Amino acid sequence: MTTLSRADLVELDRTDPLRHFRDRFLIPDGIAYFDGNSLGAMPKAVPERMRQVVEQEWGVDLIRSWRINGWLELPARIGDKIGTLISAAPGETIVGDSTSVNLFQVLAAALKLRAGRTAILTEAGNFPTDRYIAEGLAALLGGGYNVRAVPTASLEESIADDVAVVMLTHVDYRTGRMWEMDRIGARARAAGALTVWDLSHSAGAVPVDLTAAGADFAVGCGYKYLNGGPGAPAYLFMAQRHQEATALPLTGWLGHTRPFAFEDAYRPAQGIRKARVGTPPILSLAALEIGVDLVAEATVAALREKSTRQTQIFATLMEQRAATFGFRIVTPADPARRGSQISVTHDSAWPIVQALAARGVIGDFRAPDILRFGIASLYTRYVDLWEAVTHISDVMTHRAWDRPEFHAPSDGAT
Amino acid sequence: MTTLSRADLVELDRTDPLRHFRDRFLIPDGIAYFDGNSLGAMPKAVPERMRQVVEQEWGVDLIRSWRINGWLELPARIGDKIGTLISAAPGETIVGDSTSVNLFQVLAAALKLRAGRTAILTEAGNFPTDRYIAEGLAALLGGGYNVRAVPTASLEESIADDVAVVMLTHVDYRTGRMWEMDRIGARARAAGALTVWDLSHSAGAVPVDLTAAGADFAVGCGYKYLNGGPGAPAYLFMAQRHQEATALPLTGWLGHTRPFAFEDAYRPAQGIRKARVGTPPILSLAALEIGVDLVAEATVAALREKSTRQTQIFATLMEQRAATFGFRIVTPADPARRGSQISVTHDSAWPIVQALAARGVIGDFRAPDILRFGIASLYTRYVDLWEAVTHISDVMTHRAWDRPEFHAPSDGAT
Repeated sequence: MTTLSRADLVELDRTDPLRHFRDRFLIPDGIAYFDGNSLGAMPKAVPERMRQVVEQEWGVDLIRSWRINGWLELPARIGDKIGTLISAAPGETIVGDSTSVNLFQVLAAALKLRAGRTAILTEAGNFPTDRYIAEGLAALLGGGYNVRAVPTASLEESIADDVAVVMLTHVDYRTGRMWEMDRIGARARAAGALTVWDLSHSAGAVPVDLTAAGADFAVGCGYKYLNGGPGAPAYLFMAQRHQEATALPLTGWLGHTRPFAFEDAYRPAQGIRKARVGTPPILSLAALEIGVDLVAEATVAALREKSTRQTQIFATLMEQRAATFGFRIVTPADPARRGSQISVTHDSAWPIVQALAARGVIGDFRAPDILRFGIASLYTRYVDLWEAVTHISDVMTHRAWDRPEFHAPSDGAT
Repeated sequence: MTTLSRADLVELDRTDPLRHFRDRFLIPDGIAYFDGNSLGAMPKAVPERMRQVVEQEWGVDLIRSWRINGWLELPARIGDKIGTLISAAPGETIVGDSTSVNLFQVLAAALKLRAGRTAILTEAGNFPTDRYIAEGLAALLGGGYNVRAVPTASLEESIADDVAVVMLTHVDYRTGRMWEMDRIGARARAAGALTVWDLSHSAGAVPVDLTAAGADFAVGCGYKYLNGGPGAPAYLFMAQRHQEATALPLTGWLGHTRPFAFEDAYRPAQGIRKARVGTPPILSLAALEIGVDLVAEATVAALREKSTRQTQIFATLMEQRAATFGFRIVTPADPARRGSQISVTHDSAWPIVQALAARGVIGDFRAPDILRFGIASLYTRYVDLWEAVTHISDVMTHRAWDRPEFHAPSDGAT
């Protein structure tokens, strides 16, 4: 590849078909933001929507808003919108609770659907909450249920006939490595196991076709590439073919077929609505919808095309301009196997991330030694990649990271 | 009691020590709002706080807000504030998830602490989500776990030696009847059972002393008398003496002692923080804090004094001005046994509630035949009681409720 120049990147921005979407977000001056996969930037339409939902819907319409302003329907409405981003059919996706809670729900349901099988299979290094939740469920159930975390390379061969469910995060939060969902789905089906996919680092960033993959269940969060705001509610996907037989453990009143009849006995709602639990946080839901709408408007296909090019360019720039500093790219080189991020390792990853943040280049540290740069192609420019690598090179050349304030112990809260 | 006049109520408002709090809420013109126990009114400070959290904290400070704007500490900080309203010690209460999810958490924990006992005891007619969640948990666990719903009158004598946990809603959502928490607590302790209290209709409305009652666990919602906004996150109380031994089933990453270390193995945080699950909805949390602060400023004692007088006056007015229409007051006459509401039954409850709402008197229908009038003494005026009963009397005198539009089938979404 010929050496890239800043002018090349400026030109790519000029002709980028998605360039106008950046104007729809508030991006603070002086910030090159590579943390859209931790907290997506704020869509500029959010403040006005929040004003409306707070001052008019809550303040004036009060309790009547559940009906007249559609609050009751928000979880299913936004769920279906997210469904279009992951190729789910209408009525297969609903919004509510957190990724952790939703994971508990679908794992418990999957174990019940595969009674007699006792293992939840996952990969070592999966996002901690996925493992913690699975282990908490297994401990609660007793009876020999267990979580089997195997090395990535041996995942497929480990789908034994005692495996009830294969639980994987589609795009790895540290390395950005992406599973072949079709392949794992087929392998799991052949072995009689169900699949649970965590799409937290996928939805809104990479194409996901749950239908084609024959996925059984999925969950994901709303605050990363979906730009739903801090702690935005999560979503839960349940394939239509499982909905009638599936029993979810968190049988909250809004999952009842007639919640406002206040019946003594629980009768689950039809379809995906049985996955509702308690009253959902409307203010956070209202913000989430705006972020989801922006992704849908841009289309995942266009975002993916730009993102693939951007991750490739970021990796190339790191090789061309920062090769001598001891970084190692751990994100797969094959575009088909990586999500929308570039992660590199370095022995001084923590202070380097701090030094970059002090210069306005905001990425993430992930223990023990990863610098993670998320690419949110809705608003990340090509030239931002140049600026980031320029700062990285500069920080390394002058050992600018080697100051006491950047070595302060990590509680990791970035 | 002498006959009350409108002038008497105007005078009570004039001298009400809490009268200025009404100005801190947006109360729409022409509305007499008796639904603060379903969705509390909007504090006027919320829009500015939302603007700040959305535009500055999310929009500008972005991911750094978890640290620099204290997002990570919000659940514990607001939890402790709610704790002061229910006489919990600092570090015993935390905010997050929904009442239903929190109930699942503490019920599972209580069953584990009382291994060998298999029954969850509750009263028939408890709020549906409480029963549904308990039954969902029992079904998930199998092994003979069961939910025993007994008539209220026989609750105490039913605390048998197979009862692991007594689960009660402190103030009944339909009748407003209030349990004697101390008495039930003592009886449960004597029988070796734990207590789980649902405080959804209590916190912010009536004095609750979890410490004096020796309560073990409690949950409650943020959007009723705490004025936290639609679907505001719920809270969870765990007595300090149980915290070390308690294992919660929803072991999400934020309940880990070092969440950002991303360790493979789950190690619960110390104390109440182990009750954190996933990433909490920050926008909804920010609004909740404002509502909680207002209750704390007014003090529960002052609110209770006013509320006791208001519920008494409302009942008196119903007797003096609406006695001939077939209403029956089902809220206990003894102030010590009732919460902050007056509920009456009527065969035509549903259309009457609709006809009143059309006149701006907003109460609740609760199946099958209850009209529920919540008194939120932070903003409900004495004269509102007069207006409500005037409208009730008028609606009944002229059969104004007997129109087709008020008979439309109830999905109960009010």
